[in-house]
Amino acid sequence: MPVLSPSVQRLIDAFRALPGIGPLSAQRIVFHLLMEDGRAQAASLSSALQEAVEKVHHCPVCNTLCESELCPICADESRERDKICVVETPADQLVIENSLAYRGLYFILGGRISPIDDIGPEQLGFRKLLERVEKGGVKEVIIATSFTAQGDATAHFIARAIARHRPEVRVTRLARGIPSGVELEYTDVATVAQAVISRHETFSSE
Amino acid sequence: MPVLSPSVQRLIDAFRALPGIGPLSAQRIVFHLLMEDGRAQAASLSSALQEAVEKVHHCPVCNTLCESELCPICADESRERDKICVVETPADQLVIENSLAYRGLYFILGGRISPIDDIGPEQLGFRKLLERVEKGGVKEVIIATSFTAQGDATAHFIARAIARHRPEVRVTRLARGIPSGVELEYTDVATVAQAVISRHETFSSE
Ligand SMILES: [Zn+2]
Ligand SMILES: [Zn+2]
Repeated sequence: MPVLSPSVQRLIDAFRALPGIGPLSAQRIVFHLLMEDGRAQAASLSSALQEAVEKVHHCPVCNTLCESELCPICADESRERDKICVVETPADQLVIENSLAYRGLYFILGGRISPIDDIGPEQLGFRKLLERVEKGGVKEVIIATSFTAQGDATAHFIARAIARHRPEVRVTRLARGIPSGVELEYTDVATVAQAVISRHETFSSE
Repeated sequence: MPVLSPSVQRLIDAFRALPGIGPLSAQRIVFHLLMEDGRAQAASLSSALQEAVEKVHHCPVCNTLCESELCPICADESRERDKICVVETPADQLVIENSLAYRGLYFILGGRISPIDDIGPEQLGFRKLLERVEKGGVKEVIIATSFTAQGDATAHFIARAIARHRPEVRVTRLARGIPSGVELEYTDVATVAQAVISRHETFSSE
């Protein structure tokens, strides 16, 4: 006989299905939410979910999550509108925004090319990116996909397509290298190798 | 200017408030739920939360989470009704049920005595446990609180109170020792010390 009541089990299953949550954390969260102290939290999480699902949509220009018609960045006339940074996810966009190193616009792919998952350029809204570039006024596309096999494939696909349609647009990719504040000895060999290959004269990087 | 729209930020905050979820996992979960693939999952998590909050209550006898009038264990006439196992949380109850080593009834405290958090016997529904014991028919109370300072204090409090009111009831506590399937060298010293202190003749533990 199962100890857990059906709605408790269903809720545990719903939490387990979230990325990064294992069976034990799902259980821990659900028991917390259903004990006296957590009830209000459960209700507010439920309504926050419902509200977000209703209000949040994709920006028609850059594809990020937003609830205004255009996202605040696309709507901001002070951004450098001749640069588009292509990222995989809104989380990646957030990391670049937080770096304060970029003042241009964005395009969020929502993933990366992955033939085994049936994700091709079509699924990533690639046509929309190309239309933006073809409309003119874009001088540089900065590809910030991840340094994985699929991220590399996605970057190459985008670079080739832009070179074919708009050869005058500069296509760049984020630099690879040793992360700031990390000891060399704790850095993985592939990163170190890439940093050696991409080495440059001191103070010439600007 | 914040990149995240207010409902996205509110949802991230709601996930961050859950036990064991840090800021980055909260972000990852929310972006997953709001991208195309996750929308249905977000809606079903929201409704599972709402349903659980509405349907799930505490069993009037043992205090566990349930949605029937009595929980299935309290309602099960085949359980050994002269034993009560006292646990801190429904999760602990689940662990003991899954061990298949116990066929008695339960009492869920919902926490442990913690003076700095203003949690005393009153807050743990201790009076209800004592009433069950005083009603008679209970031969043994097995205390399964955690082996922490607060769990120990809770265990001692319960043991003393039962000894005072019903000295004929046997009060036991789970055995401490080396976990099964764990190498001795990976076991913390406090556990090893306890196992040495509680050592017994081989084969006499039954
Ligand atoms: Zn936008
Ligand atoms: Zn019960």
